[in-house]
Amino acid sequence: MRRLLVTIRYDGSQYHGWQVQKNATSVQSVVQDALQQVLQSRPDIHGCSRTDAGVHAREYCFHFDTDHIIELDHLILAMNRNLPDDIAAGACKQVSDDFHARYSCVAKQYVYQIYNGRFRDPFHDRGWYFYPYQMDVDRMNEAAQHFLGRHDFIGFCSVGGKMHDTVRTVSEARVERDGDEVRFYVTADGFLYNMVRIMTGTLLSVAQGKKQPNEMSGLIASCSRAGAGVTAPANGLWLNRVFYENPALK
Amino acid sequence: MRRLLVTIRYDGSQYHGWQVQKNATSVQSVVQDALQQVLQSRPDIHGCSRTDAGVHAREYCFHFDTDHIIELDHLILAMNRNLPDDIAAGACKQVSDDFHARYSCVAKQYVYQIYNGRFRDPFHDRGWYFYPYQMDVDRMNEAAQHFLGRHDFIGFCSVGGKMHDTVRTVSEARVERDGDEVRFYVTADGFLYNMVRIMTGTLLSVAQGKKQPNEMSGLIASCSRAGAGVTAPANGLWLNRVFYENPALK
Repeated sequence: MRRLLVTIRYDGSQYHGWQVQKNATSVQSVVQDALQQVLQSRPDIHGCSRTDAGVHAREYCFHFDTDHIIELDHLILAMNRNLPDDIAAGACKQVSDDFHARYSCVAKQYVYQIYNGRFRDPFHDRGWYFYPYQMDVDRMNEAAQHFLGRHDFIGFCSVGGKMHDTVRTVSEARVERDGDEVRFYVTADGFLYNMVRIMTGTLLSVAQGKKQPNEMSGLIASCSRAGAGVTAPANGLWLNRVFYENPALK
Repeated sequence: MRRLLVTIRYDGSQYHGWQVQKNATSVQSVVQDALQQVLQSRPDIHGCSRTDAGVHAREYCFHFDTDHIIELDHLILAMNRNLPDDIAAGACKQVSDDFHARYSCVAKQYVYQIYNGRFRDPFHDRGWYFYPYQMDVDRMNEAAQHFLGRHDFIGFCSVGGKMHDTVRTVSEARVERDGDEVRFYVTADGFLYNMVRIMTGTLLSVAQGKKQPNEMSGLIASCSRAGAGVTAPANGLWLNRVFYENPALK
């Protein structure tokens, strides 16, 4: 028996997130279908996190156990032949039996992508939130620094979340502009339900001048959802990188 | 009466090129439909070039005449509300009555985009030719230099072309790698039918070692289609920039 860690990418536009759900197509079930074609049996697969409907992944990891002796490169090629165009496998490694795609993960990086052109653009459509208004990225970046460190982020969590521990440590938070493309990068040891999308909505209210960058700390400390901004749309959000203790794994 | 020059972008995947055709959806007819909604009359529109089925445009220009007094920014916004997601208007300028989107054009830049990753990638799908084999980009670039200058490119023209004059002047030809992304940029005063796709197919045979870079000049001089490489797929080709004598126009 081998435990395999697979890295995939997907355009989440057509899926109701990662997790298998009744009456909705999930990335997980489509990946399981493809593996079933390749391995001739349907494996249980364990993802590194849930992702919301419509969210994308530049790097998503899952593991599963198999007795099949297929070579790992052949597994990737065979998976890709059986996956739809909007999901692709990119790497596969054998890992130890105590490895778990979710519980062995030490940090994740998300990026929220905003297209700040004046007019919409067909090549900034999937994976971009179209926001054609003036944005002060320096102010956003100043505000984002207040997310850094260990905080109770319960004010940045939608009510659907079922977390008992809402304290997270953010190790990276920065906003960058490249022409009309604006990206908010945030890395943490874990994320609450809708946390990055609420952070983004809050940063956008700073960009518009409705909030001041130095209000952020008080806003986090208030532990109140009402203080933060709206939840930005799912379409701009990407799970960008997944970190494990042993970086040789991927 | 005003003559207006409009710049659009489009993802050509779902279209049979720019030109209106029987029994096939063209970009031109979809743009005319949108303008009809906005202007309440259907204008004749004149594009800067034909593009093949499946080819994309990062910048495509057309002109038309109208008596409508709509402000130019409003025209763009109104067009975008009436266009499908894969076509977007980006700019509009008033031009002189003797301007013609096609005949006033002094040069065009195309880019052919190749995704050279090992495995296919959902985010290098539309607009990229997936080529997972080894590519020597330095050799391709060396070969591309032979395209520069004034040559008869009849050997790089598909038989469907109806050109009587097949001499063109190429002012830019270079191949660049950025990670797994390889781009072939070519600028000329005009292009023959399938010329960039045949150039790309020829450069790929150089990349594979089937042809030598220094064979290019002889190959062009032979004026024989048989000497050049295969026609690369439409999906990787983009009309990237359109140049007019007066750069203030766009």
